[in-house]
Amino acid sequence: MREFHPQDLDDVALGAALLGTGGGGDPYIGKLMAQEAIRKHGPVRVMELSELDDDALVVPVAMMGAPTVMLEKLPSGTEATSAFQALEAYLGRKIDAVLCGEAGGLNSTIPFVVAAENNLPLVDADGMGRAFPELQMVTFTLEGVEATPLTMADDKGNAALMNTVNNHWTERLARSLTIDMGGASLIAFYAMDGATAKRSAIAGTVGLAADIGRVIRQARRDKQPAIEAARKLLGGYELFSGKITDIDRRTEGGFARGTAKLDGVDAFSGKSFEIEFQNEFLIAREAGGTVLCTTPDLITLLDADDGEPVTTESLRFGFRVVALGIPSPARWRTEEGLELVGPRYFGYDTDFKPVEAQHSSGGSA
Amino acid sequence: MREFHPQDLDDVALGAALLGTGGGGDPYIGKLMAQEAIRKHGPVRVMELSELDDDALVVPVAMMGAPTVMLEKLPSGTEATSAFQALEAYLGRKIDAVLCGEAGGLNSTIPFVVAAENNLPLVDADGMGRAFPELQMVTFTLEGVEATPLTMADDKGNAALMNTVNNHWTERLARSLTIDMGGASLIAFYAMDGATAKRSAIAGTVGLAADIGRVIRQARRDKQPAIEAARKLLGGYELFSGKITDIDRRTEGGFARGTAKLDGVDAFSGKSFEIEFQNEFLIAREAGGTVLCTTPDLITLLDADDGEPVTTESLRFGFRVVALGIPSPARWRTEEGLELVGPRYFGYDTDFKPVEAQHSSGGSA
Repeated sequence: MREFHPQDLDDVALGAALLGTGGGGDPYIGKLMAQEAIRKHGPVRVMELSELDDDALVVPVAMMGAPTVMLEKLPSGTEATSAFQALEAYLGRKIDAVLCGEAGGLNSTIPFVVAAENNLPLVDADGMGRAFPELQMVTFTLEGVEATPLTMADDKGNAALMNTVNNHWTERLARSLTIDMGGASLIAFYAMDGATAKRSAIAGTVGLAADIGRVIRQARRDKQPAIEAARKLLGGYELFSGKITDIDRRTEGGFARGTAKLDGVDAFSGKSFEIEFQNEFLIAREAGGTVLCTTPDLITLLDADDGEPVTTESLRFGFRVVALGIPSPARWRTEEGLELVGPRYFGYDTDFKPVEAQHSSGGSA
Repeated sequence: MREFHPQDLDDVALGAALLGTGGGGDPYIGKLMAQEAIRKHGPVRVMELSELDDDALVVPVAMMGAPTVMLEKLPSGTEATSAFQALEAYLGRKIDAVLCGEAGGLNSTIPFVVAAENNLPLVDADGMGRAFPELQMVTFTLEGVEATPLTMADDKGNAALMNTVNNHWTERLARSLTIDMGGASLIAFYAMDGATAKRSAIAGTVGLAADIGRVIRQARRDKQPAIEAARKLLGGYELFSGKITDIDRRTEGGFARGTAKLDGVDAFSGKSFEIEFQNEFLIAREAGGTVLCTTPDLITLLDADDGEPVTTESLRFGFRVVALGIPSPARWRTEEGLELVGPRYFGYDTDFKPVEAQHSSGGSA
């Protein structure tokens, strides 16, 4: 158990944005909301996953929607607690701890808001170890945990509760409501007991986000290369370094979808690259050629100057970025994991190859 | 209080289909479902609206969706009771009586299924006095009754509950879920006490449907003109008699939308007509010319041979039909009523004129 104070959220938001692989919501907004909640209600106790009682009731909360929309439509914070408390009322039992649905700039910090407002501990774990675009894409699904009952709240005061026949139906129905609600909503879902959380969640991702953030900040302060520090910490690979030459982005079906094209610089000069995304970066390849990294491994873009993670909504022509490929949690590399979040699920005609296998020779690790 | 037996449902379904103005769901399916439920659980007691206790809890149930879809996707009956009981559980109080949301082939008979399965009386009233395509289009809305909490169930086993900031939001969110659920869902909504029901519902529409059905059947049996018998009973006007020459129908935004074109026959020979619909018939006019009747007045098409009401989904090239215009309940002709269901709400650039005003001279009444 460790207390997180407002200044700790600087590191969490920064590191989580890297794990968010372009999605997971804007880290700046999430950080401000969490810091405000902590200032008002006191520090948040973050507990290890292993410290959970087997029969504790644990509930993940998250913002659902296209990151592009979230930027224009700031959550007030009260919606998350409203969804959380609606689920508690429906379950008819006090919730004992808050969990992160995914790791991402906003979705690693919103749970701090709910934890602070409800005076509950936050469990140092999440359901992805990164961010993914659809709500069934959690390790909870792999362990048979049902997403519903799911509660949802929007910024206008609308609220919904659903029970579905499986987690794909939850995604489908919740996505439609989220689109209607203006493109973003706050949800509480995957209520589970402590034993199930210990079996199904990815442990340590809140602490990992804080570590990543601290390492990047320290490197900046010490005038050391921040990206290299983060890469080392995560056992990642430099996929390429480049400049954005074209960006095609649209909000479609409730997601921010698109492609970024880049020209290589430095060691990658003379080559072109492209990255496709659906909220999160899903595939990176040489233009018209070799696949460099695919989901579920993490593809994250960092500002070449200061190592700041670049979200899909902040991609701009001319940006200088470094692309890192980072091995995903092992759960995602199993047959069932790849069925849920592998490249073929997203319509890419390619098999998953671990990033370390593709970059074992000539990689910069 | 009067008991409705399986054979009574023949008349209710037939008459309600006329009040359904092309929508309200297929009368045949609804009738079979209601008759089966009554055979299994016993006759349904239909009570007058005025007999309701002021503090009784009354809940309307309805099928939501495009009539075209409902034809391909038969409700099993259990979904309606499932939505109904979910609302009862949420309200935490026993529901005392069932109410119709609208008058229409399916939506006047589904409430019989719920009443029979839950051993409850059905109130002889509804929220429209006809059918309308959107769920906020009920006299309950005019009296400030909230549509939510609304519960919804589909044929797969998915269920939702929502609380919205107003009835337009309920329509929006529930419509999206209904589309996801395959185009049709069963809902329970507008929970209210007896005093509110007495103030806001349109009384007598179940009995009226039964009367219309009986009059049409008797006329058929006596070889009398069935359409004329129904017209007289309802104080309606013959808008035209014609043959369908063209029908454009599409499922769009969860509704069956389209236009039917007709060539006049008999007294209307040499003229052409068109009727537009969104689940229900909304406007009838001479081709490119005079508006003959608009929502909220009822436009209903009847098979020229036997007076069988024609639903929008059963419109076919070559059909011989008679179009009746019938004055709507007075509530819809007020300023607030027209704002909710008048021609301008549906995008028609025309003011509402009472059908009797347009047909006072030369009308066939």
